[in-house]
Amino acid sequence: MTAFALSDLTTSLRIPPGTGAIDLSAIETNAAPGFDGDKKAGEAALLALAPELADLQERLFAEGRAGGRRNILLVLQGMDTSGKGGTLRSTVGLVDPQGVRITSFKAPTREELAHDFLWRITKALPEVGMLGVFDRSHYEDVLIARVRELAPKDEIERRYDAINAWEAELAAEGTTIIKCMLHISAAEQKERLLARLDDETKYWKYNPGDVDERELWPAYQEAYEIAIARTNTKVAPWHVVPADKKWYRNLAIGTLLLDALRSFDLGWPPADFDVEHEKRRLLDEKPL
Amino acid sequence: MTAFALSDLTTSLRIPPGTGAIDLSAIETNAAPGFDGDKKAGEAALLALAPELADLQERLFAEGRAGGRRNILLVLQGMDTSGKGGTLRSTVGLVDPQGVRITSFKAPTREELAHDFLWRITKALPEVGMLGVFDRSHYEDVLIARVRELAPKDEIERRYDAINAWEAELAAEGTTIIKCMLHISAAEQKERLLARLDDETKYWKYNPGDVDERELWPAYQEAYEIAIARTNTKVAPWHVVPADKKWYRNLAIGTLLLDALRSFDLGWPPADFDVEHEKRRLLDEKPL
Repeated sequence: MTAFALSDLTTSLRIPPGTGAIDLSAIETNAAPGFDGDKKAGEAALLALAPELADLQERLFAEGRAGGRRNILLVLQGMDTSGKGGTLRSTVGLVDPQGVRITSFKAPTREELAHDFLWRITKALPEVGMLGVFDRSHYEDVLIARVRELAPKDEIERRYDAINAWEAELAAEGTTIIKCMLHISAAEQKERLLARLDDETKYWKYNPGDVDERELWPAYQEAYEIAIARTNTKVAPWHVVPADKKWYRNLAIGTLLLDALRSFDLGWPPADFDVEHEKRRLLDEKPL
Repeated sequence: MTAFALSDLTTSLRIPPGTGAIDLSAIETNAAPGFDGDKKAGEAALLALAPELADLQERLFAEGRAGGRRNILLVLQGMDTSGKGGTLRSTVGLVDPQGVRITSFKAPTREELAHDFLWRITKALPEVGMLGVFDRSHYEDVLIARVRELAPKDEIERRYDAINAWEAELAAEGTTIIKCMLHISAAEQKERLLARLDDETKYWKYNPGDVDERELWPAYQEAYEIAIARTNTKVAPWHVVPADKKWYRNLAIGTLLLDALRSFDLGWPPADFDVEHEKRRLLDEKPL
């Protein structure tokens, strides 16, 4: 069905649980690990996955309607311009929107700040049968919060453990958690920010504050390294997705989703009613 | 761009405000008003609309991010199997899922029943810039609620006015409301229910309770006629969409969405920062 081995690609993105310190600078941002072809082949490979992706997603949705308790939570993190939005459009957009729940987390509101950091995240969790997608997430609370010192040091420390406990509980309840860091280089980000400034249809995506954050690039990379190392658990492993090549990023996320869906071994829910009896009811009905 | 006049199609679906009694039985369910071609041409016409639909939806989303207050609320109503889900997949699925918020309303929970019927509906309203889609809606509270006598008669009566006031307020705040009844015949429904019973990949969509509702077909048609007549306002008009032909239903909804988006005359938000200054910041930055 596909010209590459799904498992090769997903394995090459996964940070093995138990990995100690992570060195993001050692992970090539412009690479396409696990895939041999070029852009054209990569785009074709993603489209070739689409029918199976849509079919399995519908089965998961059906299972949720029929009493199943499983669902998927895809967590997208990455620096500005790393392509979280593009992934939503190009990859998540391949499946039926009825079965998808996307939440884009912004700076927390006053009400949200008056609760534990996981409060608003918990409220946004997908229902059973759904594909939930977080565009940014609770990880902001150990990323920007660490870099910008938005919380005391010991609170940041506490959060790694809190996240692990929360994700473990979620996984135990039936959620498959797929955490992805979209990994771009600082040079690629610069190019993408400049492209926004060169195109008046993209001004709305540009925020001068993004450049303020960019100036803290090394601190953010370090915060990612720490967050990934501290929260890379067996039940909720991290994937670092080289994202300078947009087509590879889209293919990689599609592959991770398909891999998770395949592992569910999804059938179709059996009838919980008497099929023949229902047919007779319809065929023998009195005129309406 | 398209082989048919958008405005002909949308006009032919719209129930003119001020129309008195509605007779649904006089509206052909198997027709394709405002479109001359066959299924193949209709599917091609929808795909031909897709790029403009996606482009304008992105502009609306951008406007919302830039302080705009407009959005769209598409209300889908119809008997079981009328194709609300199919419309979500085939038409709503044409635009970026980031900009879409779908809510599928089920039987109200105990908490929801402890509030006014518009409470849960209000909570599900789309943010500015978004395309909100209701798969069922507050109209259930004057449809099944009327047919099944789930509320006293005078409460049902009160609700028509409450809905009109609520929708008028919504429209005044910047929401374009597009209300659609997906109109199928009883014979078509029977065929679709039987098809579900003949296909084990569709059992999960079948609910014996749907046949109980079907037996009340004339009462439901009457409830729709009354609801449409009572809530067909200038700011929130009803459209009756012949829906026996799935391809026409999809095209019709796509056309209504495009028509609304075109009427917004959407540009791109201007920069609210100094473009040249931002370019210099990036080009002259110190090494990170």
